[in-house]
Amino acid sequence: MTDDATRDPTASPLVSAALHTDRYELTMIDAALRAGTHDTPCVFELFARRLPDGRRYGVVAGTGRLLDAIADFRFGPDELAYLERERVVSDEALDWLASYRFTGDIRGYREGEPYFPGSPLLVVEAGFAEGVVLETLALSTLNYDSAVASAAARMVSAAGGRPLAEMGSRRTGEHSAVAAARAAYIAGFGASSNLEAGRTWGVPTMGTAAHAFTLLFPDEPSAFRAQIASLGTGTTLLVDTYDIRQGVENAVRAAGPELGAVRIDSGDLGVVVREVREQLDALGADRTRITVTNDLDEHAIAALASAPVDSYGVGTALVTGSGAPAANMVYKLVARQGADGDWVGVGKSSEGKATVGGRKQPVRALRNGVAVAEEIHVDDPPVTALGPDAGRLLHVPLVTAGEPVDEARGPAGVEAARAHHARAMAELPADALRLSRGEPAIPTRYL
Amino acid sequence: MTDDATRDPTASPLVSAALHTDRYELTMIDAALRAGTHDTPCVFELFARRLPDGRRYGVVAGTGRLLDAIADFRFGPDELAYLERERVVSDEALDWLASYRFTGDIRGYREGEPYFPGSPLLVVEAGFAEGVVLETLALSTLNYDSAVASAAARMVSAAGGRPLAEMGSRRTGEHSAVAAARAAYIAGFGASSNLEAGRTWGVPTMGTAAHAFTLLFPDEPSAFRAQIASLGTGTTLLVDTYDIRQGVENAVRAAGPELGAVRIDSGDLGVVVREVREQLDALGADRTRITVTNDLDEHAIAALASAPVDSYGVGTALVTGSGAPAANMVYKLVARQGADGDWVGVGKSSEGKATVGGRKQPVRALRNGVAVAEEIHVDDPPVTALGPDAGRLLHVPLVTAGEPVDEARGPAGVEAARAHHARAMAELPADALRLSRGEPAIPTRYL
Repeated sequence: MTDDATRDPTASPLVSAALHTDRYELTMIDAALRAGTHDTPCVFELFARRLPDGRRYGVVAGTGRLLDAIADFRFGPDELAYLERERVVSDEALDWLASYRFTGDIRGYREGEPYFPGSPLLVVEAGFAEGVVLETLALSTLNYDSAVASAAARMVSAAGGRPLAEMGSRRTGEHSAVAAARAAYIAGFGASSNLEAGRTWGVPTMGTAAHAFTLLFPDEPSAFRAQIASLGTGTTLLVDTYDIRQGVENAVRAAGPELGAVRIDSGDLGVVVREVREQLDALGADRTRITVTNDLDEHAIAALASAPVDSYGVGTALVTGSGAPAANMVYKLVARQGADGDWVGVGKSSEGKATVGGRKQPVRALRNGVAVAEEIHVDDPPVTALGPDAGRLLHVPLVTAGEPVDEARGPAGVEAARAHHARAMAELPADALRLSRGEPAIPTRYL
Repeated sequence: MTDDATRDPTASPLVSAALHTDRYELTMIDAALRAGTHDTPCVFELFARRLPDGRRYGVVAGTGRLLDAIADFRFGPDELAYLERERVVSDEALDWLASYRFTGDIRGYREGEPYFPGSPLLVVEAGFAEGVVLETLALSTLNYDSAVASAAARMVSAAGGRPLAEMGSRRTGEHSAVAAARAAYIAGFGASSNLEAGRTWGVPTMGTAAHAFTLLFPDEPSAFRAQIASLGTGTTLLVDTYDIRQGVENAVRAAGPELGAVRIDSGDLGVVVREVREQLDALGADRTRITVTNDLDEHAIAALASAPVDSYGVGTALVTGSGAPAANMVYKLVARQGADGDWVGVGKSSEGKATVGGRKQPVRALRNGVAVAEEIHVDDPPVTALGPDAGRLLHVPLVTAGEPVDEARGPAGVEAARAHHARAMAELPADALRLSRGEPAIPTRYL
C-alpha cells in the first residue's frame, strides 16, 4: 500500500532481494545453526540435467543480474521484522541473517556462453548457510533469463543476419520483461521496445506506433501524417489497421518514397510481404523496409527466409522461451568438507534425478576451432592452461571473497556477454544451429 | 551498478514503474501532442481474443498489483533524464510526462473472476495519452498473473480438495515469483514457499528442507535429527535423498509416529506413494501425511486422485502457466470522442485480429445459479440492476478519477479476490472443470 503524501512518488517500495527466497532456505539455516553445521565448507553447483526437449544447446543469461542481486542481498529491519513476526526462524537464526553477507567464491560460465546437459554453470564455494540461502535467487534469475536467451539464439540463427527486435514486454511479468530484453540482446537481438532495459542495461530501444494511434484519428492518412510530423519520414508506419493495400498506398503518399519502413502485424506474412514489397517498389519506395511482427517464433522466422522481410519483431514466443519457459537448472550441494578436513563429493541418488558429486571444472574441447565435447573434470587439480587447439576453459571468476567482479556487471557486462556469445556460437558445429528437434550438439563427458 | 558505501544495503534500486513501458507508447504520445489529439477522450479495453488452446475458462489475476503500479506510475528526474538523453521524445512530451498522473476511470472484472474470450476485463476511460501509456504495464501484469491463476485453478480442481502449495519461485523471474505465489493463492492454493509473497501480500508460507540439507550431514538419520531438533516432530522430512524405503524408516525412527509428513520428490509417484503409505502405517505412523512434489501439473495431480497423497507441491508447471505461459490479453482502443462530441466505436479490421468497438458492459448470465453465457452489452445505457436469477454484473470500479479503490489492494485485496474466485468458480457449469481440451465453458454473446 502506498502513502502518496509521504514518499517519493518515483521510488519503488524499498524491498530487499533477501525475501526472494524459499522459506526452506531459512529453516535449513536455522536447523544447521542448531546442529553446528552451518559453517561447514561446501560446494554448490548450478546446472541443468537436460536441455528442453529437442534443443541442441542452451545459452546462459542472468549472471550479471545475479551479481547485482548478491551484492544487495541483505536482511534489513523490515525483512527481519517479518521473519520474526511469522516465527519463520529462531532468534539465533535472525541474528545470523541480520549480519549476512556472502563472503565466498563463485566461478562460472561467462554470461552468453552456450551450455549443455551437466555443464557446471555456477560453482559456489562457501559455508553451508551462506551458500544455500542463494539457491532460490540464483535459480530464479538464471532459469528465466537463460530460457529467453536460449530461445533468442535460435531466432537469431533462423533470421540469418536480418535484424531482430524484442517486443514481448507485455507478455511476461513487468520485471521479467526487462530481464528478457537484456537476455535477448545478449543472444544477438539488435534492440528492444522496453525502456527500462534501455535505462538499466544499455539495450538499444526502438518502437513506432500501435493500432490505437491510427484509430485515434478520423482516418488513416491523418494518423500517418501526424506520426511523420513527429518522427520524420524515416519512421515505421503500421499499415494493417484497415486494409493493407490501401495502408501501404496511404503510407507512401504521406511520407514519400523515403518512408523508412512499414510494419505488418497480421495475415499470412509469406504472401502479404511479397505483395507489399511489389507495391512499395511500384510506388517508387524501393528502399522502404518491411518489418513483420505477428506472433513470430524461430520456425515462423525461418519460414520467411525467402520472403522480402527486412526485420522481425518478436514478442510472446521470445519472452516465454518458445515452448521452454524455464530452463531446467537446479542448485545442488556437490561437495562438503568432512569432520577430518577432507572434501567429500556428495550427491543424491533419487530415481531419475541423481547428481554427480564433486568439484568440477569444465572445458569446451575444440578441434580446429570447432567444439567437439563438453569435458568436465571432476575433483582434478585445477586445469590452468590448455594446449593450442585443445579447448577453452569455461569457468571465470564471478565473485571473489564476496566481491562480485565488475566486468560482468552493468551495461558493460551486457556488451561483454553479447560479444562473448557471438564468439562462442561460432565455435559450435554447424549442426547445432538446426531448428529441428535433436540431441545436444556436443556430448558431455566427465573426466 | 551498486555503490555499497553510500546506499541503504536493504533498498532496491530506486526505480519507478514508468519505464516498464514500450517505447512506442511515448512516441505515440509525442505525436498526439503535436497533432493536438492527446486529450481526446478515449475508451481502452483489455481483453483476450481467445483462451489458450483447449482451455475452458481463464482466471483474472494481477489487478491489485496493477492498481499499486498505477498509483506509483510517475516519471521522475531519473526517468526523464534517460528519455532526454536518448532523445526518445520531444521536450514538449517530456514536460507532459513530468506532470503525468492518471486521472481517468477504470472499471473491470474483480480479481479472481473467471473469464472467457472477449470478456472486457478492464475498461479504461481517459484522454488518449493518459490511457495509452498504461498499455504495457497493464498487459505485463495481467497477462502473467492471469496465466498462473488460470493454471492454478485447474490444479485446484484436479486436487479435489487436497491442499496445494506453490513452490515454483526458482522457475520464473524473481519478481514474477512473487506475483505467481500471489496468483496461485487467489486461485485456491493454500500456501507458497515464497517469503516475499508472505511479506507483501499476506500469502501463508511453508517449507521444510532440501536434499542439500540431508547431504550436509554424514548420514540421513543425523540430518533428520537435526531438522527435528529445530522444527519439531510435526515437520516434513524429505525421504528420497538416498533410498526411499530406508528414508521412511529413518524418518519415523527419528521423529516417532507423530512425524508430521514425509515429502517425496522423485520416482513413479503413484506406485511409490502407496508403498510409503503402507510402510508408514506398518510403522505406526498412520497419521503422518505424504506430500509429493515431482514436476506436477494438473494432469499428474489428477492421476494421483486415488493414491494416498495428502498434499501437493507444484512448481514449474504452475509458474509457467502449464503450457500457456502468457494469457493472450491485448489492450485496444475501442471508442473515442469525435470532433462533434459524439462517441465513435473504433476497431481495427486486421485479418484474424478484428476488434469489436464500443464501450462494453459484461454480465454473467445465470440460470438457477449456473453460468450460461457471458453477455456483453455494447454501447447500451449502463445496466444497473438485474432481475433475480438473471445474472451478475461483472464490472466493479477499480480506479475513480485517478484514485485506485482501496478494497482491491494489498493483502486484504488478495483475500477478497480469493474469496470471490471460490464463489465465482462455483457458478460455472460442471463441464468447465474438466481438464481435457474443450471449448470455452460458456459462450460469449454481444448484445
